[in-house]
Amino acid sequence: MTLHGKNFIGNSLSAEGEQTLTASNPATGAALDGAFVVATATEIDRAVNLASQAFPAFRALSAEVRATFLEAIAEEILAIGDSLLERANAETGLPLARLTGERGRTVGQLKLFANIVREGSWVQAKIDPALPDRKPLPRPDLRRMLIPIGPVAVFGASNFPFAFSVAGGDTASALAAGCPVIVKAHPAHPGVSEMTAAAILRAAERVGAPEGVFSLVHGVKEVGIALVEHPRLEAVAFTGSHGAGMALFNAAAARPRPIPVFAEMGSVNPVFLLPGALAERGEALAAGLAQSITLGVGQFCTNPGLVAGVSTLALDTFTSALGATVSAAPPGVMLHQGISSVYAAGVKRLAGTGGVVLAAEATGETAPAGAHPALLTTSAANFIANHAIGEENFGPSSVLVSCDSRDELLALAEALDGQLTASIHGTERDFVEYRKLIHILEMKVGRLIFNGYPTGVEVSYAMQHGGPYPSTTDSRTTSVGGSAIERFVRPLCYQDTPDLLLPDELRNENVLSIWRLIDGKTTQEAVNG
Amino acid sequence: MTLHGKNFIGNSLSAEGEQTLTASNPATGAALDGAFVVATATEIDRAVNLASQAFPAFRALSAEVRATFLEAIAEEILAIGDSLLERANAETGLPLARLTGERGRTVGQLKLFANIVREGSWVQAKIDPALPDRKPLPRPDLRRMLIPIGPVAVFGASNFPFAFSVAGGDTASALAAGCPVIVKAHPAHPGVSEMTAAAILRAAERVGAPEGVFSLVHGVKEVGIALVEHPRLEAVAFTGSHGAGMALFNAAAARPRPIPVFAEMGSVNPVFLLPGALAERGEALAAGLAQSITLGVGQFCTNPGLVAGVSTLALDTFTSALGATVSAAPPGVMLHQGISSVYAAGVKRLAGTGGVVLAAEATGETAPAGAHPALLTTSAANFIANHAIGEENFGPSSVLVSCDSRDELLALAEALDGQLTASIHGTERDFVEYRKLIHILEMKVGRLIFNGYPTGVEVSYAMQHGGPYPSTTDSRTTSVGGSAIERFVRPLCYQDTPDLLLPDELRNENVLSIWRLIDGKTTQEAVNG
Repeated sequence: MTLHGKNFIGNSLSAEGEQTLTASNPATGAALDGAFVVATATEIDRAVNLASQAFPAFRALSAEVRATFLEAIAEEILAIGDSLLERANAETGLPLARLTGERGRTVGQLKLFANIVREGSWVQAKIDPALPDRKPLPRPDLRRMLIPIGPVAVFGASNFPFAFSVAGGDTASALAAGCPVIVKAHPAHPGVSEMTAAAILRAAERVGAPEGVFSLVHGVKEVGIALVEHPRLEAVAFTGSHGAGMALFNAAAARPRPIPVFAEMGSVNPVFLLPGALAERGEALAAGLAQSITLGVGQFCTNPGLVAGVSTLALDTFTSALGATVSAAPPGVMLHQGISSVYAAGVKRLAGTGGVVLAAEATGETAPAGAHPALLTTSAANFIANHAIGEENFGPSSVLVSCDSRDELLALAEALDGQLTASIHGTERDFVEYRKLIHILEMKVGRLIFNGYPTGVEVSYAMQHGGPYPSTTDSRTTSVGGSAIERFVRPLCYQDTPDLLLPDELRNENVLSIWRLIDGKTTQEAVNG
Repeated sequence: MTLHGKNFIGNSLSAEGEQTLTASNPATGAALDGAFVVATATEIDRAVNLASQAFPAFRALSAEVRATFLEAIAEEILAIGDSLLERANAETGLPLARLTGERGRTVGQLKLFANIVREGSWVQAKIDPALPDRKPLPRPDLRRMLIPIGPVAVFGASNFPFAFSVAGGDTASALAAGCPVIVKAHPAHPGVSEMTAAAILRAAERVGAPEGVFSLVHGVKEVGIALVEHPRLEAVAFTGSHGAGMALFNAAAARPRPIPVFAEMGSVNPVFLLPGALAERGEALAAGLAQSITLGVGQFCTNPGLVAGVSTLALDTFTSALGATVSAAPPGVMLHQGISSVYAAGVKRLAGTGGVVLAAEATGETAPAGAHPALLTTSAANFIANHAIGEENFGPSSVLVSCDSRDELLALAEALDGQLTASIHGTERDFVEYRKLIHILEMKVGRLIFNGYPTGVEVSYAMQHGGPYPSTTDSRTTSVGGSAIERFVRPLCYQDTPDLLLPDELRNENVLSIWRLIDGKTTQEAVNG
């Protein structure tokens, strides 16, 4: 497959810029073919303007057409076949089996949103019929539903070249809501991005979606900021580092007209090992946790970067077992050399922090972007006193914190920043004794896991992937699962509107058979029905 | 009634500061009794810390107790009797009849949220049961619901001393969600604020709510900023001017840990008069609009500050009739002298703007905080070319814009900033011909009104009071109606959690009989039921 390296500005290929980006294979360091032209300010302006012009026509498409569009994207991605997986493998170093699974997940996401759009109740229709005879004043007829907000910028993440990238969950949920999307391709996998963008545009053509419903631009920081600052942009979705996420958040808040930024910036995803569980199954926990820490070379937002337990003989045994497994783990290949250097520096920084011990580190020859799994240990007192120990070091390392007592473990939990997830391993009895830990963690996280590991994020209706700051910039939202669509909509209320002028979702007859709240009651009935 | 003038810091009265505020009667200029002590940084810190400490116990209260708390607040407010209305009248200049109605609305809001909390489905429970046999990987059990976020700062608005103040919709919805509230009293009605705060604390005592669930502080800008910057605060609700709202928004975004600000900052609420309606009922429209413009001396966020129509004889006739009614309108008393001075300056500024004509202005002696209703006219071309003409001038004035054609009227609509509301008066035939206007306005407003006026905001499930910036800082939310509770919550997902450890809303048996989404289906059934 030949890559043209151009930006997709609406339906046109465009390469007006003079700078180019290239990709390299993190496993070999070899340069990959393709020179990707950084988008100019003019091209970015054209992409957002096209999106803005496409918006009225796109949101007017029926739910059926929008659902078909999402399904067509899934089909077009699969139709590319192995060349997509191979390019992804070359650009990211992720194994083909993992990439095949991730492609399946991405296709599944598109289908989930197709189902949600087709079912239709996601608009949360609320109807309060008129009360013309009410005293002292009549009540007007009020009908409220969620409508799309307009052009959305999506930033591809490096660690999921499919599921959190060009046609990932952000794009799928924004298109499902009825919002045009402009993607900034992640510079580490520009080839996969180009191939996926072409698939989206083929799908758009198949269903007759208007030009501008999708664009893709290449670039780094400046391109991202220019996109966020464009006056016609309405929202931003991002997954990545804290620094990059906050740069977008600050740029969006400082606009003459601020817009929301939904940035998922990762966390350390603490895992609490309660005494009963440690005594009962310490070895299994060590094996499970080692697997979760090293899975995908630790390149998940939900990677467990912090493990905590009360100091007992069982915790010592567990620590030794975990350390032995980590030491014996094979070195891995990270997504690119930038990430692996930051990871290695992070381990070094932690190991050099007072009171922190590098308890185990894998060895062996590594690829150019290689990484050695590592386990560090420290005390709760030291952890609480030094905030930096609790900051995410993206990659296959974890800090094990031993606490003197139940109370110190609770204090550790209280001292945590906001997290995407926390996990608790315990017996029935542990959960009774540590009920307070559950209550503390409920306030700190977006997802609370019992006797499991944080890696592995299900795509379903009930998933929550997002938690209090600094794990995200908006804890009221999720970037994975059905509710992700809620980021790109706002409520509109129609008052005393002739039935014929209302959207189908709000008309008297419930032709779509959606669930609505009528006078405060959940029903599928017609109004006055 | 003697007013002590102290801050309510949790259950203690506190007056550590040296500055005081006093209120005056806007109708007479007379000073009112009571000296209200501006809260110190220490007092603000104590109030937020108490709220933070109260939060776990408060959110653990049953829905029934929280509903009873809201109802008890309503009872305690009514129990104060006429002295509350009289003090409100003295502090705001609003007539007793209006204040009696507003108190009724406030009581109604508290009861609406009590009903919502008691019914329980507002937590939007979503359950995806485990699929242990799924290939290639089993699905865990996932259960998601909305939980409260923690201490909320509420800023009282000057124009609704009950409904948007100490026990208004922001406080009611935050308490309903399970969040402790710290109110900054509006300095123009500190006495009403003190009396209402005492009512809330009596209600809190009756139901056994923990100390810190409610505090009230007096002060102006510095107190507000200190509150917003407090590290333990989680959200801010505000209704008022653009300048004050954006100062809070910017302070919240610049915190080390940014928090959401829900600021409703008003708008000009355009009213479009389509040709058929003007020809058919121009005189009635002039009468109705004059009433809406001057209602409550124009002191509503939904006041119609902009009227637009296509230039016809019927529009001329309408304009004359509207002008005559406005000229003959009695001068009114505004909330305080600051507001009336800004209003008068605004009319003067508009009248002095090129291309704008002061077509009508009421006359007559006014009170110290008096205001004369006014009508200004301009052309669409002039309006579009000069953004300042479209900015809100809080008070009983409106700008009438005449358009040369349907296309120019559509261009005017396209040029508008975000609005709380827009209204369209038309015949059936108008609506066919101006279908595009409806589509443009859908993208600009939170509420779209047909053949009605924007003043009068119903408190119900389907109400939307909030629109695109600059009318609010977060168009995804409302500050009036049942959905206002959604501002103060975030989703939490429980994974593989033992049934006994789950909140009632998510347990297998649906003891609360709430509506839940199970595997994507809306139902009141139990899980596996």
